[in-house]
Amino acid sequence: MPKSSDDRPYLRGVLSPVVTPFKANLEIDKRRFVAHCRWLLDNGCDGLAVFGTNSEANSMTVQEKIELLDALLDAGVDPGRLMPGTGACAIGDAVALSAHAVKSGCAGVLMLPPFYYKNVPDEGLARYFGEVISRVDDPRLRVYLYHIPPVAQVGISLDLITRLRRDGPDTVVGIKDSSGDWSNTKAVLDAFAAGGFQVFAGSDDFLLTNLRNGGVGCITASGNVNSPAIGRLYATWEQQGADDRQRALTQTRSLLAKYPMIPALKAAIAHYSGDPDWATVRPPLQALSPAQAETLAKSLAEDGFTMPGLPRPGM
Amino acid sequence: MPKSSDDRPYLRGVLSPVVTPFKANLEIDKRRFVAHCRWLLDNGCDGLAVFGTNSEANSMTVQEKIELLDALLDAGVDPGRLMPGTGACAIGDAVALSAHAVKSGCAGVLMLPPFYYKNVPDEGLARYFGEVISRVDDPRLRVYLYHIPPVAQVGISLDLITRLRRDGPDTVVGIKDSSGDWSNTKAVLDAFAAGGFQVFAGSDDFLLTNLRNGGVGCITASGNVNSPAIGRLYATWEQQGADDRQRALTQTRSLLAKYPMIPALKAAIAHYSGDPDWATVRPPLQALSPAQAETLAKSLAEDGFTMPGLPRPGM
Repeated sequence: MPKSSDDRPYLRGVLSPVVTPFKANLEIDKRRFVAHCRWLLDNGCDGLAVFGTNSEANSMTVQEKIELLDALLDAGVDPGRLMPGTGACAIGDAVALSAHAVKSGCAGVLMLPPFYYKNVPDEGLARYFGEVISRVDDPRLRVYLYHIPPVAQVGISLDLITRLRRDGPDTVVGIKDSSGDWSNTKAVLDAFAAGGFQVFAGSDDFLLTNLRNGGVGCITASGNVNSPAIGRLYATWEQQGADDRQRALTQTRSLLAKYPMIPALKAAIAHYSGDPDWATVRPPLQALSPAQAETLAKSLAEDGFTMPGLPRPGM
Repeated sequence: MPKSSDDRPYLRGVLSPVVTPFKANLEIDKRRFVAHCRWLLDNGCDGLAVFGTNSEANSMTVQEKIELLDALLDAGVDPGRLMPGTGACAIGDAVALSAHAVKSGCAGVLMLPPFYYKNVPDEGLARYFGEVISRVDDPRLRVYLYHIPPVAQVGISLDLITRLRRDGPDTVVGIKDSSGDWSNTKAVLDAFAAGGFQVFAGSDDFLLTNLRNGGVGCITASGNVNSPAIGRLYATWEQQGADDRQRALTQTRSLLAKYPMIPALKAAIAHYSGDPDWATVRPPLQALSPAQAETLAKSLAEDGFTMPGLPRPGM
């Protein structure tokens, strides 16, 4: 296990798992992607968890992700604010993308466990992460574990974290907990936060609670559209009215969560940017119907929601 | 949707989802793979479903699979007996491997649905298969759908089959049903077998029942070790004693099924070939412990099980 020798600060705060824009022919639209990333960083996001679940990252090939990361860096985005998702079912795929991210200077990588085989032993998962880390073989590598059992079905147990932290305390540095189960996040915080383990809530619903219990922020789907307000809570969470600001976040998220999240996020961006192409998703996902998109837009408007300064077509 | 213009016979009978041998460093051992494929074809297998669940195919990169398929063809194995697994979460990956298989002359491809996102609509799955088929764009392509909800969690519904058969009757030609639920296989047979849809049971447990109800064979994990007996039942299923032969298959499979299937298959091959390297699996899977492997070997021996003519190290 390589030892980390650098003093880079850890990413903290609000990260968005950036949705990926596609053209009508399902190709990635790099220009719109870069523009949306810039908007997020200028509007409340401390970092970008590109290639996450909400990015449809598993609907993209490794090569597509490498090229998209390069496009983002070529556009001048600071790699120190990036935490690309690099986990994959095959060790070779996870190594290729993780190594590219580390060489590019990314602050960390967010790693799903291999998610095809179910009911695998922690021993096998530990060997998987150990193999990826030793093959990337770079002391700058910082791995954030990605616990999202509702989707991956394969989770990251406390025993597994203990083992990985023991084997690579400078490498396995944090987690995103998207279990939706606060009692799990709390158990992770209680066991590991004091030792410097960086715990991100997987939803802004838990941002305030996570910060109050030793967590470092959230990596949240709704960050794609509501990052200004989420960033404001992060900046002021110890000030008066934080609970009210949290309630407002939760309310906005609940409007999106009435629909499948990724199509809903893209429908909202399409609406506020005036760019209908944003609604495109890759199969097997399905865009909201026009009626659904209209109802969502109406409910967001009634809630006073806006996305100021969002790039519009041609910008 | 391209129309099929050839008169190749459909693959039928007993197919093995061939386990993939790895070296200690987890590299694929092509030599041992080719030798095992040859043994299977000489010992009861009508075809080889390489790159299936039992092949640890999702623990291999697309490039590794392309090179392994090439190695098999270079060794002189008839592509007309091959049905490689080519489904993937990303359309680009499924297209790359499917196109290579078709160009290589493979009899068909066995396609998992994209399995990361859960609870996706049939509409999205239909678009996924449609995109892959139209991008491969080759009238020789024959797709067998792979229904394995216990692992993939994303299944192939009867409605989806209906839709895919309507859109591409000459392309979407069959299914492997690994639900383990005979009532589902029966429903698929009742709905589609009369129209020429090729229904493989996903386990030799259902071989006889499937054949008696209009199915065409099985694609079965235990085919990796028990292909001689399974092939014998297929060849004689309409003759006296078929039920006894089926019971014997089910008994052998039950001995393997006391353990995780892939490690058990590899432990059995390691034992009967005298080649301990066969036990190696890629993470996240874990090999049987020596004690487990010994107990399995003992139970197989007590059952009178053998693997005659299995290639031994150095052969």
